[in-house]
Amino acid sequence: MPANEETLGDTLGESTRLKTLDVGAQPSTTGIQEKVEPLKEIDDSANHTRNLEDKPASYCSLPSRGIHEHFLRDFFEIILENAVFEGTSRKTRVVEWADPAALQSAVDLKLRDNGISHEELLALVKNVIKYSVKTGHPHFANQLFSSVDPYGLAAQWLTDALNPSVYTYEVSPVFSLMEEEVLREMRKVVGWKDGRGDGIFCPGGSIANGYAINLARHHKYPELKEMGLFQGPRLIVFTSEDAHYSVKKLAAFLGIGTRNVCCVKVDDKGKMCVKDLEDQVRKTLSEGALPMMVSATAGTTVLGAFDPLSDIAAVCEKYKMWFHVDAAWGGGALMSSKHRHLLNGVELADSVTWNPHKLLAAPQQCSTLLLRHENLLQSAHGLKATYLFQQDKFYDTSFDSGDKHVQCGRRADVLKFWFMWKAKGTDGLEAHIDKVFELSKYFTNLVRNRDGWSLLQEPECTNVCFWYVPPSMRQLKGNELTNALHKVAPAVKERMVRKGSMLVTYQPLHGQPNFFRLVLQNSGLTEADMRFFVEEFERLADDL
Amino acid sequence: MPANEETLGDTLGESTRLKTLDVGAQPSTTGIQEKVEPLKEIDDSANHTRNLEDKPASYCSLPSRGIHEHFLRDFFEIILENAVFEGTSRKTRVVEWADPAALQSAVDLKLRDNGISHEELLALVKNVIKYSVKTGHPHFANQLFSSVDPYGLAAQWLTDALNPSVYTYEVSPVFSLMEEEVLREMRKVVGWKDGRGDGIFCPGGSIANGYAINLARHHKYPELKEMGLFQGPRLIVFTSEDAHYSVKKLAAFLGIGTRNVCCVKVDDKGKMCVKDLEDQVRKTLSEGALPMMVSATAGTTVLGAFDPLSDIAAVCEKYKMWFHVDAAWGGGALMSSKHRHLLNGVELADSVTWNPHKLLAAPQQCSTLLLRHENLLQSAHGLKATYLFQQDKFYDTSFDSGDKHVQCGRRADVLKFWFMWKAKGTDGLEAHIDKVFELSKYFTNLVRNRDGWSLLQEPECTNVCFWYVPPSMRQLKGNELTNALHKVAPAVKERMVRKGSMLVTYQPLHGQPNFFRLVLQNSGLTEADMRFFVEEFERLADDL
Repeated sequence: MPANEETLGDTLGESTRLKTLDVGAQPSTTGIQEKVEPLKEIDDSANHTRNLEDKPASYCSLPSRGIHEHFLRDFFEIILENAVFEGTSRKTRVVEWADPAALQSAVDLKLRDNGISHEELLALVKNVIKYSVKTGHPHFANQLFSSVDPYGLAAQWLTDALNPSVYTYEVSPVFSLMEEEVLREMRKVVGWKDGRGDGIFCPGGSIANGYAINLARHHKYPELKEMGLFQGPRLIVFTSEDAHYSVKKLAAFLGIGTRNVCCVKVDDKGKMCVKDLEDQVRKTLSEGALPMMVSATAGTTVLGAFDPLSDIAAVCEKYKMWFHVDAAWGGGALMSSKHRHLLNGVELADSVTWNPHKLLAAPQQCSTLLLRHENLLQSAHGLKATYLFQQDKFYDTSFDSGDKHVQCGRRADVLKFWFMWKAKGTDGLEAHIDKVFELSKYFTNLVRNRDGWSLLQEPECTNVCFWYVPPSMRQLKGNELTNALHKVAPAVKERMVRKGSMLVTYQPLHGQPNFFRLVLQNSGLTEADMRFFVEEFERLADDL
Repeated sequence: MPANEETLGDTLGESTRLKTLDVGAQPSTTGIQEKVEPLKEIDDSANHTRNLEDKPASYCSLPSRGIHEHFLRDFFEIILENAVFEGTSRKTRVVEWADPAALQSAVDLKLRDNGISHEELLALVKNVIKYSVKTGHPHFANQLFSSVDPYGLAAQWLTDALNPSVYTYEVSPVFSLMEEEVLREMRKVVGWKDGRGDGIFCPGGSIANGYAINLARHHKYPELKEMGLFQGPRLIVFTSEDAHYSVKKLAAFLGIGTRNVCCVKVDDKGKMCVKDLEDQVRKTLSEGALPMMVSATAGTTVLGAFDPLSDIAAVCEKYKMWFHVDAAWGGGALMSSKHRHLLNGVELADSVTWNPHKLLAAPQQCSTLLLRHENLLQSAHGLKATYLFQQDKFYDTSFDSGDKHVQCGRRADVLKFWFMWKAKGTDGLEAHIDKVFELSKYFTNLVRNRDGWSLLQEPECTNVCFWYVPPSMRQLKGNELTNALHKVAPAVKERMVRKGSMLVTYQPLHGQPNFFRLVLQNSGLTEADMRFFVEEFERLADDL
């Protein structure tokens, strides 16, 4: 860039070609003595003016006590009362249903030229809360997440106030070390000696699974990072037909293509059939394609099934495939000495997806990818951008973890989970897991022999899947029954949403009619809540 | 799954094969009359027990007034005082530096079997705040984000308390509509008639750029979603040598490979050379590869340069390439009638990355990808998972936007920006942008002719890039000067970090020695702050 060089040259009285220079290695770039002054000296000029203009304009992005303190306190009061305590009270609705058109009228979402007052903002916020689904409500059992964990919540609030981005130690010192601590402890829980390996926080389990696919690819064919997949052999990913759709979705995103994700059959419990896996691997080889990885699932989305990890590991070993375990949902069970056997063999994995925001009830989002391999993340994703990952910094830049990620800016999702772990201890997290498993067992026992109830299967995780057949349909048979039953779930769902009494989802699977899936992550629930769920289903469905 | 069918069959007194059924279309699945009961009826059983066990165990993920109210209030007080107000006060340090080993001792990060008390947690939190970099501090000008916007912050707190995941209207009604409103308004600002098109919130601008690459690919070769890139022709992405590294990083992730990202030369202002672009496109064609897209940059990471969008659009039109604009950084300028000319031609783009968490100072993260094309996101990423995107729901499922994303669970990043927009109005956002541009102009004028200062170039955005040459080096020439200057930046940086007086980053570029980049997003700053920055650089460097 001649122009810049000239500018510099001009200033210094000589036109000279400036080149990148070899600078000294860690730890000191200069040898210049530290020069730490007392802080008061640095502020004089700024503070003087600051005092003269203590009322910044209302558009300013800097908090001002005079303008914002009252507002922030009032806002917090509303959050604490309306969202945190009322929103998780059994005396309130899980949802105040409004269809899209009605909601448009009920909450003034429209953006306009002029801002609105603090009073109007606070009124608006109450409306946002009123019409939002209360995912922390005890009777929200609709997704693979629930709860508003009080410690997780507090830590999220702090994360927001500190507003960090975790790419360098320089701008995120505490969170850089905290991520290392949490990821290492999680690796220990997985079963890797001394927590060795590597790991990252990801924006959700889907993307964590995508990372796993890319790492499998990079491990086997490191040249593809540079070359791309063009002209190369077909790479095949194996996963079960009950695996989360993210494996296919991310395989498409990564250029592998959905047809190169082979869906292995599941047995009658929803677990991957290892024989079918091996058959499909052989078939793939016979077609000249390359079996690259198996993504096993520990806790499938619908049935909560755990694939036979040790057996799958053996197949991976035999055919030199990467062994990934998607434990986004079921990973929490590893915290419990009673339930961790469900994931026996996970320690043989090359990579593990594990979302503490699911079974462990950390706030959204807290997802991790854990690796048995060191240095692979950096090798697969690193590009060493010189504006961010300078190598002539004065501290040990091995703590700058950002280049391991495909994200650049990144929230400190670690703080909430670390804080929960601090507050409850490993023992508390174990108690939490044991409790939600007990609750699902209790619910299962309640409905096992109850009139009209039919379990799809004995739950392995905290998913309980069932049909409820209203009295009027109990004499139906064959297709007539199937037809009727398929329509029961959406009808009951509509009623529960309009009533707001609970939220439990439904879906079809394996050609079977719609069934409900109750799913538990909230350890604040009680046996009475389980009885409530059962009775409420009957109240909603019995006149169908 | 025979076992399940038997279970169901047994309950109903007949073994029958259940198959997927054709169910009625929208809007009503059943025609069954609504049945909305008064809410109090639903709670009796649960509440009874609830009162008996009002002290849930400390591990529980359900907030309890008795256990948590005090704690949450105390915690909030600490956040408000220590992080929000003190952390953004000019009387405090931007960072309390500790190197990794010292920080390990200063903050007890270790996770243990037992939880700790509320008192211990609060003390710990104070320490986390103390040693965290204050990114909302007026003198944090180190990255392409800063500020703790009071309205954005409040809205983040609420997002945490509601803990939503935005994939279906069913579980995120308010945020589903809010995303539509904000994305449509942003598209209007881009210049697309009536805000038509599509868009998504993404976990950062890097991933937004990755989406753009995948959409370019899918638009031209929709079959690759299924088939993968194997055996196909080489697809080429063009971007400038000064573009953000995420284009290469995501191209590698997407299977395109870093060598298939052609880096187009920049001119002496850091803008893409359109002639070189066209030369490289022709060369690509002559090699039998396929020019797929251009990723132009509106606001480059280091220099803040804006590529000539209209001219690039013409090249894209000529060679039928997808035209992406990475306006992650500079997009905010679109809000200002004074500065939006910098992005002239952006309305010709197929896709635009725009991060309100950068120039508009929304909290981390708030990143969007905006599309001129409708339906392409769903077509490129949709897989219609039946457990989540049921088609027999009772409401209009076109509001279930989750399948457009490669994420499944996803935070409601919209609320903070929507709330800021509500609070300030479009006019307030414009005033914010004008202010940060004015500040950078003021800073530039301050140093333009000042002894020892040398601007790399006249800033286009709010990045101001400069060398500061300490008095002792002002007589140096040629390589001697270059060598010395390259070491000034890391030395000054070390001093500023240890002192904690400000944070401003440095980097080399185009073979030139390390220079500083001051970058402004905080509209609460004043001219006095600009003078402080200038004088502080001199204080830190003058004895070198």
